[in-house]
Amino acid sequence: MNEVPPHRLDVALIHYPVNNRGGEVIGSAVTNLDLHDIARAGRTYGVDACWIVTPYDDQQRLAEEIVRHWTEGYGGTVNPDRREALSRVRICPDLEGVLAAMTAKWGIRPRVLATCAQPRPRTENYSAVRTRLAGGEPLLLLFGTAWGLTADVVDGADGVLPPIMGRGGFNHLSVRSAVAIILDRLLGE
Amino acid sequence: MNEVPPHRLDVALIHYPVNNRGGEVIGSAVTNLDLHDIARAGRTYGVDACWIVTPYDDQQRLAEEIVRHWTEGYGGTVNPDRREALSRVRICPDLEGVLAAMTAKWGIRPRVLATCAQPRPRTENYSAVRTRLAGGEPLLLLFGTAWGLTADVVDGADGVLPPIMGRGGFNHLSVRSAVAIILDRLLGE
Repeated sequence: MNEVPPHRLDVALIHYPVNNRGGEVIGSAVTNLDLHDIARAGRTYGVDACWIVTPYDDQQRLAEEIVRHWTEGYGGTVNPDRREALSRVRICPDLEGVLAAMTAKWGIRPRVLATCAQPRPRTENYSAVRTRLAGGEPLLLLFGTAWGLTADVVDGADGVLPPIMGRGGFNHLSVRSAVAIILDRLLGE
Repeated sequence: MNEVPPHRLDVALIHYPVNNRGGEVIGSAVTNLDLHDIARAGRTYGVDACWIVTPYDDQQRLAEEIVRHWTEGYGGTVNPDRREALSRVRICPDLEGVLAAMTAKWGIRPRVLATCAQPRPRTENYSAVRTRLAGGEPLLLLFGTAWGLTADVVDGADGVLPPIMGRGGFNHLSVRSAVAIILDRLLGE
């Protein structure tokens, strides 16, 4: 439980800017179960911090209240595993703030990899990213809520992970499932 | 989208009998997001049916109402991808009913594999099960809600998948994340 992971990986769940169904840029609402599922998967695979990125005060407060219930409140008393997972959640208004905090934490700006359900240029395959992680390179993975990260965010990243293709062309996983699968591909046995 | 998968795989999400935190046998409540996330992951990987197993009439009705909203109601009109995913959800009071329906569908009783967060006897590793699926053997994967499948259900299965181990010994994924990771391990590229 206290083993120090050799890799340096954070995950950011972006609530703004993201696309809506029609491809417009919107801000999405924080979803309770996103925090839980992503924090639990993150803790399982040794992710250092799960960043909830939203510029909205009320959404930041909601996320803080959820986290506090499980880290300081009643939830953590009855469920210490959930406390341990949610203690890795951090809340930040924007991606630049995440990068500044990570740079301060690890002394070097992390490599930023976007995720996208569609194929994009500048793809880095999973085994190449596994190798980066095993070598100790600090990385930040970006995941979009709603209909996904905007083109500006994807194009602004240092690279893009390939879309998760299953069987038959249907490609509409929840962001919770996508985070779990990608962490397993990058850090699973 | 209409490609016929060569594999024959169903997934069952068990709500009774499962364990609670204290190891007692309980029935759990149907969770809306379980249906969505598991149906979407199932459709992505070519799972034929996602079975929601609960003996409780009110919980069966709840699951049916959720499915109907997305397959026949307003939800499916605005989100055809969600309709396609949820059209693969089936509701059944018990495991025997699932097995009878699968045997009728495929003309042969499926091999039943349980999942468990702890190591168990009679483990079949992921690559062996990938080979079974590629060979067309009908399989049913069992996932437990709450604190997981009871020992009786695990011991009654034909085999058990290894627990998903991440890094560092923390092993408390949501069932939604576990389904996504296991389908990717068995059927991902």
